Amino acid sequence: MEIDIVKNEKERFVIIGGGFGGLEIARRLVKLNVQVVLIDRHNYHQFQPLFYQVATAGLEPSSIIFPFRRNFQRKDNFHFRMAEVDRIDGEKKIVHTSIGYLTFDKLIIATGATNNFFGNNEIEEHALAMKSINESLRIRNRVLEQFEEALSVPENEKKEHITFAIAGGGPTGVELAGSIAEMKRYILPKEYPELDFDQMRIILVEGAPRVLNAMLEKSSMKAKKYLEGLGVEVLVNTRVNGYDGTELTLNNDTTIRAKTLIWAAGIKGNYIDGIPEDAKVRGNRISVNQFNQIIGMEDVYAIGDVANMANVDLAYPNGHPQLAQVAIQQGNRFYKNMKDQLRGKEMTPFKYKNLGTMATVGRNKAVVELPKMKFYGFFAWLVWMLVHLRSILGVRNKFIVFLNWVWNYFTYNLSLRVIIKGGANKDQD
Amino acid sequence: MEIDIVKNEKERFVIIGGGFGGLEIARRLVKLNVQVVLIDRHNYHQFQPLFYQVATAGLEPSSIIFPFRRNFQRKDNFHFRMAEVDRIDGEKKIVHTSIGYLTFDKLIIATGATNNFFGNNEIEEHALAMKSINESLRIRNRVLEQFEEALSVPENEKKEHITFAIAGGGPTGVELAGSIAEMKRYILPKEYPELDFDQMRIILVEGAPRVLNAMLEKSSMKAKKYLEGLGVEVLVNTRVNGYDGTELTLNNDTTIRAKTLIWAAGIKGNYIDGIPEDAKVRGNRISVNQFNQIIGMEDVYAIGDVANMANVDLAYPNGHPQLAQVAIQQGNRFYKNMKDQLRGKEMTPFKYKNLGTMATVGRNKAVVELPKMKFYGFFAWLVWMLVHLRSILGVRNKFIVFLNWVWNYFTYNLSLRVIIKGGANKDQD
Repeated sequence: MEIDIVKNEKERFVIIGGGFGGLEIARRLVKLNVQVVLIDRHNYHQFQPLFYQVATAGLEPSSIIFPFRRNFQRKDNFHFRMAEVDRIDGEKKIVHTSIGYLTFDKLIIATGATNNFFGNNEIEEHALAMKSINESLRIRNRVLEQFEEALSVPENEKKEHITFAIAGGGPTGVELAGSIAEMKRYILPKEYPELDFDQMRIILVEGAPRVLNAMLEKSSMKAKKYLEGLGVEVLVNTRVNGYDGTELTLNNDTTIRAKTLIWAAGIKGNYIDGIPEDAKVRGNRISVNQFNQIIGMEDVYAIGDVANMANVDLAYPNGHPQLAQVAIQQGNRFYKNMKDQLRGKEMTPFKYKNLGTMATVGRNKAVVELPKMKFYGFFAWLVWMLVHLRSILGVRNKFIVFLNWVWNYFTYNLSLRVIIKGGANKDQD
Repeated sequence: MEIDIVKNEKERFVIIGGGFGGLEIARRLVKLNVQVVLIDRHNYHQFQPLFYQVATAGLEPSSIIFPFRRNFQRKDNFHFRMAEVDRIDGEKKIVHTSIGYLTFDKLIIATGATNNFFGNNEIEEHALAMKSINESLRIRNRVLEQFEEALSVPENEKKEHITFAIAGGGPTGVELAGSIAEMKRYILPKEYPELDFDQMRIILVEGAPRVLNAMLEKSSMKAKKYLEGLGVEVLVNTRVNGYDGTELTLNNDTTIRAKTLIWAAGIKGNYIDGIPEDAKVRGNRISVNQFNQIIGMEDVYAIGDVANMANVDLAYPNGHPQLAQVAIQQGNRFYKNMKDQLRGKEMTPFKYKNLGTMATVGRNKAVVELPKMKFYGFFAWLVWMLVHLRSILGVRNKFIVFLNWVWNYFTYNLSLRVIIKGGANKDQD
């Protein structure tokens, strides 16, 4: 069945995925005299950079997600549909979805990236990941459950319940490890006086010689120092080769007993069927030219984490890093090019401007690298907060997040440590 | 296996259920020289009176639930265990749970009440209910999904997706109906311009001759007027006899097509195995004497919704109403009696003091009955808010709820309309 959206004389742009890139395009395109259809499997935008705070009970999901429709109230040329995309047909210009098919004039694939377990099914089955708000909630539940369960297992099994391993020392892994370490330091011993917190371990495993491998060496050293100061065990030059739900096997053949492994060690593009096979490149990304057009397709574009614009920018011969900034800038460039095209002007090739990178380890501890300077510690931490607050959608959300941060800073004691699994089906009450 | 809690010379009070009654007892008993063990299937207290606002995307779950451990930080004589209770053994003084067994000196059953479908399995299978935070989230998800789905069904099926039936015209049904009606008036048409909101129906079905049957007739009339002013169809003297997920059958044999039926038409006690059969009375409640002792048991008490103290209070010959106030007052009385007993004094029989009843229909619209006065409208609505704010646990929670209410009052436009089903298992991402 065809999806029931009135086709008028306006050009129809269909956007798959409302992450940073897709939403940027939708918000801008809607101002032009075109029709915009956004398709996403969820009815909300997710602010990924703060997932780790949801996972460690520092923020509520609703503070960092935002319903799409709220953004486009009273916009007649905008249509949202909650659906999964099955495949696209570039010849006929049709998108096939779980709720029917839809024709397009121009299609933007902004499906982002998901966890990459590099083919290790055992790890995929037993590890937790953090690429969606739902996965973040699952981590929160599982972490809290470990402490409840530790109370009712025999003495010699307690330790593995309160050992938390994190694979991947990028910003996600570093921030998560720091955040769990802060829970250990400030909150958990007060709430679980029956447990011995000397037994609690937080282990960060990174394959490269240093954490935050994409940043400068000094930043990596700072981050490692912060983490170790909080009691995190940082293992570099180390990879997780296997995990059966209880025991991790590292590439140096040592093993660690841990009931929780969080996987932040790799991502891959959310590829969609119907794109020419030769456009699929390393990490399931889609090869695009400097206008984000998919190689070998007409009127079909890919943006953000799923796109790979290689051999264009000398600084990034293998394509740009999979960051929010790249997605937003590509979205912005795409919009401007469409506007120019409508006015009969030439399109401008995309040029990435690195605005800086940053990561936080915990209270008063962050590393920030801007193009012309870098700084660490308290001031970096303030900058980190400011930049993130600025980027969160919605005035109320900004305010609630800010309030939570201030509250937490002074009380060390939020009250979000609840295990909720509901909203799904009856047996989860 | 025995649950590992050190048994010392102190008397051990085991409390099953951390609702209004159980939590009141735990918070007070912990100040005495006794050991307190609280068992609940969740790790948080739930503030039931505001479930309807979670269900209609006006509040977040975390604003009205509160983790138990947060309440008892650094209390050495308090122990919480997250577990289901299977049965109790009054002779051996043992509680059997999903994580092992536990001995007690005194046991308090404060398990509350759950939905009563009066044996109608068809309704139970297809209707939604609202007796837990998880059920409230499920209502939110289902209501929002109906609007998304209405966009992709044939014209003649749209109406049943946006018809919402509510069975039961007590405070829960009234507040829920009013709240959905306000979404229809203030928010939904802005976000779903493609739907025809003249087709949207909200139908409240009540078996008695009037809604809010436990309040004065004038209050019932006011509430009905408010509801109808908001566009709610109020059917009194009417019962839902059947529901197959699409079609309701009423006791007057008319039918209504609605994809959503919310059941607020009855509750029954959460009975526990091991209690003498003759203590089980109407509505699965447990018969207790005026000290909340279960008839025929020693050192085992029942408190709140699950307890039935009949033939004691002339005003309530069949037992007290199943309200938070009764549970809290019984908990309070129980604590005082225990304290008196420890000091060798006589126990005092429970006496219920009705502090008043109230219900809100929507913005500026509420009915309040205090012992010496009753009032309606804006002032009643302010009183309703104040009373509820005061009762919510936690300073931060009070503040967040207040903030949400103020925000919503002035903007008509919260941003919580997100469909999240996560935290449970992988296929709900």
